[in-house]
Amino acid sequence: MTASGSPEKNPAQAGRHNLDPHLDRYAARTSGMTASEIRALFAVASRPEVVSLAGGMPNLAALPLDSLSAQVAEIIAEDGLVALQYGSAHGVPALREQICEIMAMEGISAHPDDVVVTVGSQMGLDMVTRLFCDPGDVVIAEGPSYVGALGSFTAYQANVVHVTMDDDGLVPEALREALTQAERAGKRVKFLYTIPNFHNPAGVTLAVERREEILEICRAHDVLVVEDNPYGLLGFDGQTYPALRSTDPDNVVYLGSFSKTFASGLRVGWVLAPHAVREKLVLAAESATLCPPTFNQMIVSRYLATHDWKGQIKTFRENYRERRDAIISGLEQHMPAGSSWTHPDGGFYVWVTVPEGVDTKAMLPRAVTARVAYASGTGFYADGFGSRQMRLSYCYPTPERIREGVRRLAAVLESEMDLVRTFGTVTPRAVSGPQSPSPDTA
Amino acid sequence: MTASGSPEKNPAQAGRHNLDPHLDRYAARTSGMTASEIRALFAVASRPEVVSLAGGMPNLAALPLDSLSAQVAEIIAEDGLVALQYGSAHGVPALREQICEIMAMEGISAHPDDVVVTVGSQMGLDMVTRLFCDPGDVVIAEGPSYVGALGSFTAYQANVVHVTMDDDGLVPEALREALTQAERAGKRVKFLYTIPNFHNPAGVTLAVERREEILEICRAHDVLVVEDNPYGLLGFDGQTYPALRSTDPDNVVYLGSFSKTFASGLRVGWVLAPHAVREKLVLAAESATLCPPTFNQMIVSRYLATHDWKGQIKTFRENYRERRDAIISGLEQHMPAGSSWTHPDGGFYVWVTVPEGVDTKAMLPRAVTARVAYASGTGFYADGFGSRQMRLSYCYPTPERIREGVRRLAAVLESEMDLVRTFGTVTPRAVSGPQSPSPDTA
Repeated sequence: MTASGSPEKNPAQAGRHNLDPHLDRYAARTSGMTASEIRALFAVASRPEVVSLAGGMPNLAALPLDSLSAQVAEIIAEDGLVALQYGSAHGVPALREQICEIMAMEGISAHPDDVVVTVGSQMGLDMVTRLFCDPGDVVIAEGPSYVGALGSFTAYQANVVHVTMDDDGLVPEALREALTQAERAGKRVKFLYTIPNFHNPAGVTLAVERREEILEICRAHDVLVVEDNPYGLLGFDGQTYPALRSTDPDNVVYLGSFSKTFASGLRVGWVLAPHAVREKLVLAAESATLCPPTFNQMIVSRYLATHDWKGQIKTFRENYRERRDAIISGLEQHMPAGSSWTHPDGGFYVWVTVPEGVDTKAMLPRAVTARVAYASGTGFYADGFGSRQMRLSYCYPTPERIREGVRRLAAVLESEMDLVRTFGTVTPRAVSGPQSPSPDTA
Repeated sequence: MTASGSPEKNPAQAGRHNLDPHLDRYAARTSGMTASEIRALFAVASRPEVVSLAGGMPNLAALPLDSLSAQVAEIIAEDGLVALQYGSAHGVPALREQICEIMAMEGISAHPDDVVVTVGSQMGLDMVTRLFCDPGDVVIAEGPSYVGALGSFTAYQANVVHVTMDDDGLVPEALREALTQAERAGKRVKFLYTIPNFHNPAGVTLAVERREEILEICRAHDVLVVEDNPYGLLGFDGQTYPALRSTDPDNVVYLGSFSKTFASGLRVGWVLAPHAVREKLVLAAESATLCPPTFNQMIVSRYLATHDWKGQIKTFRENYRERRDAIISGLEQHMPAGSSWTHPDGGFYVWVTVPEGVDTKAMLPRAVTARVAYASGTGFYADGFGSRQMRLSYCYPTPERIREGVRRLAAVLESEMDLVRTFGTVTPRAVSGPQSPSPDTA
């Protein structure tokens, strides 16, 4: 037993001069965990003089803080011993009922028992992946896709296969093709991860006439659908679309969130799961956080019960529409020929393709120096694609700042294109093989 | 491409008559996810006439709700747009500084940068396991161990090896033996998971003179230490112990929580990690929940800055000491010969061994019928051990209810022993092989 203490058997001693002495101890899944591109630049990009079109922070300025303040006080004064106590991993029953009423606005008929409240819909996504994905399993996702989803898929060592979108969202024929190819290759596809409405980052919406076809394809290939819908109520004309879940309750797991329609900092989201899946989901959630914060659930529940929350969403929508108009007119006015972009009818994002030869990832530090930040397209792909794309978020800055940001961005692009014309492509290296969802910017 | 729609290629059709049509889709890790024993009885056990010695809910009655109510209102009124907005996955800086001050009470010297705020320390545990455990890796844990930890280890398919405790906590020689055996068997041990103070569920504390030895053994075997310390400030005489982390900052990951010293329903805990680990931990946390709730962190931070939180902990301690006295005197008075129990100096739990022949898991439904609930010992072992043990929680009920509960429990035990004397053991079946941490009660 003493032999174990001898130096030649002690790898900790041997590794002591490594930068990270724990390097040999990490799980395999950590090899895909790398900081996002923008984070490396965060200290600079968050300076007030930089217009950030990079983040996805909702604009909360319109929230009724005075009445919210009174309500949180009431909850603690009247019901504090419940609000500050552990709850169930399933979530507060009253809130789960209200969530069903919200989902009814997009055609969903559901029982509150099948709703599981989560710490933001990110946790819902992580739990669904925990339930379904073994290492090496395939998840189909739109290309581009939500960076946080790619992070969860990486954490469970699932492989992402991207399926192309057009202005009407996910292309059914491309989905069919991808599924068939994966089957031929002997891969196990666990689910389609899709954001049908006001896509992050693409800014497009899945056409209603495609929805049944997508569901049919997934059923035919025995693939679950994970429908992520944080922006569904933020259509700029007040339009909503029938949720995929509304017509296929047995094969769709639906993720919802209060982060964009109320308050992101409360971290309250939910999963609506097929009944058979729900119990396992609660167990998974219990192992992850025991339960979501009780107080936060009670805040959301009281807000829904007492505020004109639909009116509040209307106000949010109008704020975002004004900002969407600002960014689109800025793009039309300033962007160099050879650029193109999507035309979002809701949500937070425009997806921009820049002229050939420009690498958005390589350009990012120069853009930040020119006091504008964006998210380069590569972060939204698991396969290294996206170097000619960028995501512009119009949700947070004022319309004036947005226009100024686009002006600066266009100027950076112009000088980048000068470089391209003079020296050829400024792409630092060819894209080769899969990259992590959020590679570091060197 | 149309062939994929044909019935013979459609497993979804074939499986449609299963109870759970998603059965073939779950990840391998879900096979270990089963509901806890007590949950099956929850509806009955939570009736007011049942004395529950089963749960671990802190007793919050002494919290200053009026001033808390005023403070949460102030936070929203004065700083609502920050409180209700996304924050970083790392956590609110002011809170991380205060956490360092708290940890200093147990001899820890740490930089706020190395603290990562989590959604309760359960999430910290889950993230640490995510970082370090591949399927099949071994985690060493005390036997018995915290059921929520076993749940996380199961979720990442780690194998738990239990090490015995005595009244002075984890037995160093047994730890050395377990590590040596695991090495000989070619297993990869990733960390020792330990609750040194006022152990859940065992109610014992690791002797100070053992602490250095435990750390030395782990270093010698190149095994990380995960120190879980939710109860450290709840020593009934105000005593604290030097944290393992205090003398070994490079090889200990420390988990802390406000759930037992302030408010469990806010779900605010933390991880103090070696510097090299911390960045990966933040990335893992980001993939799990994006960030912990900002508002909740600000509530804890303001509470620490403005309340006499040490005085509040003293009040909590006194409440729990009174309850500990009630349960110990009840046990001494009523328990049948052949029973034994630990003598906690802090925390929430007594670990009871019942007379030979009695199976606490089999007895549980009969106890609930007799209006007393406990947690049977098997839930605290990954290997099926614990059928002669039970955890009694004295944290929540009043001292009178606790005494009544123990009376009822003793009566149930007496009639159980009558059965044993008449029919032999009432153990329904021999323990065979590993069980999940929280098997269902059939």
